[in-house]
Amino acid sequence: MFKILRVDMTNLKVSYEDIAPEYQGLGGRGLTSAVVAREVDPTCNPIGPRNKLILAPGLLGGTNAANSGRVSVGAKSPLTGGIKEANSGGQAGQYLARLGLAAIIVEGQAPQGKLYTLVVGQDQAQLKPADDLKGLGNYATVEKLSAVYGDKAGYVSIGQAGEMRLNSASVAFSDRELRPTRHAGRGGLGAVMGSKGLKAMVIDPQGTASVPLVHPEAFKEAAKRFAKALGEHPVTSGGLPTYGTDVLINILNEAGGLPTRNFTAGRFEGAEKVAGETLNEVTVKRGGNPTRGCMGGCIIRCSGDFLDAQGKFVSKWPEYETVWAFGPNCGIDDLDAIARYDRLCDDIGLDTIETGCAMAVAMDSGLLKFGDAAGAEKLLQEVGQGTPLGRILGSGTATVGRVFGVSHVPVVKGQSMPAYDPRAVKGIGVTYATSPMGADHTAGYSVTANILSVGGSVDPLKPAGQAALSRNLQAATAAIDSAGLCLFVAFAVLDIPDAFVAVVDMLNAKFGLNLTGDDVGSLGARVLTMEKDFNTRAGFNSADDRLPDFFKYEKLPPHGVVFDVSDAELDDTLKF
Amino acid sequence: MFKILRVDMTNLKVSYEDIAPEYQGLGGRGLTSAVVAREVDPTCNPIGPRNKLILAPGLLGGTNAANSGRVSVGAKSPLTGGIKEANSGGQAGQYLARLGLAAIIVEGQAPQGKLYTLVVGQDQAQLKPADDLKGLGNYATVEKLSAVYGDKAGYVSIGQAGEMRLNSASVAFSDRELRPTRHAGRGGLGAVMGSKGLKAMVIDPQGTASVPLVHPEAFKEAAKRFAKALGEHPVTSGGLPTYGTDVLINILNEAGGLPTRNFTAGRFEGAEKVAGETLNEVTVKRGGNPTRGCMGGCIIRCSGDFLDAQGKFVSKWPEYETVWAFGPNCGIDDLDAIARYDRLCDDIGLDTIETGCAMAVAMDSGLLKFGDAAGAEKLLQEVGQGTPLGRILGSGTATVGRVFGVSHVPVVKGQSMPAYDPRAVKGIGVTYATSPMGADHTAGYSVTANILSVGGSVDPLKPAGQAALSRNLQAATAAIDSAGLCLFVAFAVLDIPDAFVAVVDMLNAKFGLNLTGDDVGSLGARVLTMEKDFNTRAGFNSADDRLPDFFKYEKLPPHGVVFDVSDAELDDTLKF
Repeated sequence: MFKILRVDMTNLKVSYEDIAPEYQGLGGRGLTSAVVAREVDPTCNPIGPRNKLILAPGLLGGTNAANSGRVSVGAKSPLTGGIKEANSGGQAGQYLARLGLAAIIVEGQAPQGKLYTLVVGQDQAQLKPADDLKGLGNYATVEKLSAVYGDKAGYVSIGQAGEMRLNSASVAFSDRELRPTRHAGRGGLGAVMGSKGLKAMVIDPQGTASVPLVHPEAFKEAAKRFAKALGEHPVTSGGLPTYGTDVLINILNEAGGLPTRNFTAGRFEGAEKVAGETLNEVTVKRGGNPTRGCMGGCIIRCSGDFLDAQGKFVSKWPEYETVWAFGPNCGIDDLDAIARYDRLCDDIGLDTIETGCAMAVAMDSGLLKFGDAAGAEKLLQEVGQGTPLGRILGSGTATVGRVFGVSHVPVVKGQSMPAYDPRAVKGIGVTYATSPMGADHTAGYSVTANILSVGGSVDPLKPAGQAALSRNLQAATAAIDSAGLCLFVAFAVLDIPDAFVAVVDMLNAKFGLNLTGDDVGSLGARVLTMEKDFNTRAGFNSADDRLPDFFKYEKLPPHGVVFDVSDAELDDTLKF
Repeated sequence: MFKILRVDMTNLKVSYEDIAPEYQGLGGRGLTSAVVAREVDPTCNPIGPRNKLILAPGLLGGTNAANSGRVSVGAKSPLTGGIKEANSGGQAGQYLARLGLAAIIVEGQAPQGKLYTLVVGQDQAQLKPADDLKGLGNYATVEKLSAVYGDKAGYVSIGQAGEMRLNSASVAFSDRELRPTRHAGRGGLGAVMGSKGLKAMVIDPQGTASVPLVHPEAFKEAAKRFAKALGEHPVTSGGLPTYGTDVLINILNEAGGLPTRNFTAGRFEGAEKVAGETLNEVTVKRGGNPTRGCMGGCIIRCSGDFLDAQGKFVSKWPEYETVWAFGPNCGIDDLDAIARYDRLCDDIGLDTIETGCAMAVAMDSGLLKFGDAAGAEKLLQEVGQGTPLGRILGSGTATVGRVFGVSHVPVVKGQSMPAYDPRAVKGIGVTYATSPMGADHTAGYSVTANILSVGGSVDPLKPAGQAALSRNLQAATAAIDSAGLCLFVAFAVLDIPDAFVAVVDMLNAKFGLNLTGDDVGSLGARVLTMEKDFNTRAGFNSADDRLPDFFKYEKLPPHGVVFDVSDAELDDTLKF
């Protein structure tokens, strides 16, 4: 029987409880959002004692379904002021599920200046003082903890950014190599964890077995079909494993939708130098592993090890969004520098999208020049040191714009835009505008039909059809995020009908249910509606579902396009 | 015939135009708000080219009515994101009216890095390069300009804060001594002026006469009655001229509503040392002038000259809000230090309320200690120098809270609260919550009936009657702000019936109208409704009409009270 582990940081107490009826049947994002919507006052201060931090594995977590180990983190976001879910790879998702935990809910606030580690094992949990971890980055934190708790546990931690309660602070999850390289990055969830005085969690699954399945044979058969689909689709079996997510650099550059120098152009002259093809070539030449999964059970394996010229490990392969944020968006074409930024962000515990965008706005202000790779590295180091300038950068793109008086600030709901210019990829613009999460590509990845011809084809330069595309993808994504599946399974699900059927079959076999495809689809709509309702109660309205005004007025080269999906279409996007 | 002067900073052109029908009959705040509401896209970036900055004298401006020389400044606020009007004393208001200008509307944006001075004389205006003023504080700016344009002109300028487009930047107005001591302080209007590339304005009334009056004799008679009322009321004839606005320190301290150390207590042990009584005593002892008007035609004369121990001029008398913001709110009891901060804020061009509150939040974060007067002075100097830390402080209270991870941040609509704790002075809490301007005591000064027994008496510690009190005062204030009258005339208007009749009579005599008292009252309601409508279109809703959550949960000593006016009452406050 699954339980919820509730952690009271004010009184330093932990307790297990049965899953309340209103939370039953939910997992991952569906569960974190339900808890936030139900238990968190939408008007509370996000880093005050009344916010809550929730971790939840997905509905398929702990099974041997391919790519099912994502873990969702939820709270009221300090960055956006709205509801937030960010999910991550790493080991903790599977381990939480194997421990029989539907969620960990962290509430209250430890006395100021005090830090704790939550240690969770089979049927037991306790809070331990973590004064010795104070001020450490994620790498040193995991190293210290794993020396005590071993290599069988999963580690969840915040770096200096989370301790400082910076709005770009992430929650880090250790990968299979015990490195803190996977992050619930967006929305400042690390600041919420930091505000509670929780430095780390140790999730130790020792003694547990796989999660129980109501129909084991049916599950096995469906899981096999699901894996087969992932193995067949060219994106999940070819592009991603070979070039990583960074495969997108050349594609978006070609499409004229690669935001360059703080969203002033759609093509970057140095794109080739930081593209996935180059990443693969450099990695192989230096003897690095170019194909790695970020969590157990992954069969896509889009990560790798980035080594420096001397063959020393620098960071895991930077994701496309990271390469873009610090690369084209900052006018930087140095892959080695970008890998070092990636390492710094992982260590300090920073969202790379928010931080790279913030860097680009800082460059736009004249603080440093576009293309200044050494200056960017120094500035990034300052975030970890907590200098005033570092704190500004770590507070996100909107704050950098405010403090440095810049009006060209690409954010929605206070959260910076990812690596697709909404003028040249209008479907993703609809997602940026309307997602309850703020500007977030993963919330409804319209790049599929706009650019990749996956799941159909919608002209990226025209407004027609973008709202419907985004709506369908946002609903599907909310369901995938609730299942705990890696979003990249969507490539197969969108193009191979049996992949979706297999997901439904797995859910039915695990829980002994008779869900239809429509039920799963409507789960997504239900989650989105719940999230939007929280935001409404927090004070959001349709004015928050808009892009910054310059996207309507400044034409993006090379296509000379503006964002012209109508307000009415934006307002209707998430009406289900 | 009054005209509007339109200044196009993009093309560096000026033009005069007749007053459009929809702006007729409006002045001061009524006119600036009407222009913002009609001409500014509520979704524009406040420091982008699509915002506008409007200056307007009041309806009684340029007459010899007592205390009628206020000038209103309006725009979309970079601090709140909503509509903003802040008004100021100084000489420009009277001069603009004598020049026959109903308003100056500044639009567009000069090329980046370019600065201009707008020189306005009789029937002529031109933009002149102001590269030589770059980086200068307001004192040096006015000194340089007055060396050219003489002591008969009024000067309007921004300091370094406005040039940096900081959210606390004010617009400065020179007083009768040609010192830039009067400010349209709130909401970052100086940043809007800076974003347009406008460093200063010279308002030269030479060659003009008093404004025309339709019924001069009737006007004279009404003006005499009005002046008589101001001379009779104990506040306007006794308290204010003798002790300045700082007379309020001991009163609010006694009432337990003097926000101390970032709104954690309602009484300050060092209050006496910074109170108006001390201010007067020190000033007289040092040979300073303790009674001065801030503009021509003022008969209240609540200002004075603050001299240092050597008898050298430091600053004009710091206002109560300034003394409080840097004094009790920062745990500082050193009047000399506070006068130096006042001078620094006037020179850099900073709102003292926003900056003092930001300082207190910085102290709360541990960056410096409460009571550290020398540390506060150094930090304030950094704002002018534009260091990263200085920029953070100059970006306002909410930004300091965000960057330093503080959850105890007393702002509404992003604007910091003035010098009355809303838990112990609940009527002002209603004004903070519901004013379209953000937390602003001048928008509806319920302290009158709550604390001063002016215009009736409403128990400050109980929620009953506060919403009605605030509503009536907000409407009356919007009318007073449109007339160009100093808000302090309200003390007489609230207690002496003929004072209000005299105001109506003056308006009728000037314009040849037959307005009733009700007409003037409804003007205020009309202005507020227009302002609220702009904010609604900018995305504000009832969730923005709330105090931060901690005011509902943290009890304020010594009375142990929380803010408990109901949400429903707040929502109804400005429904007319």
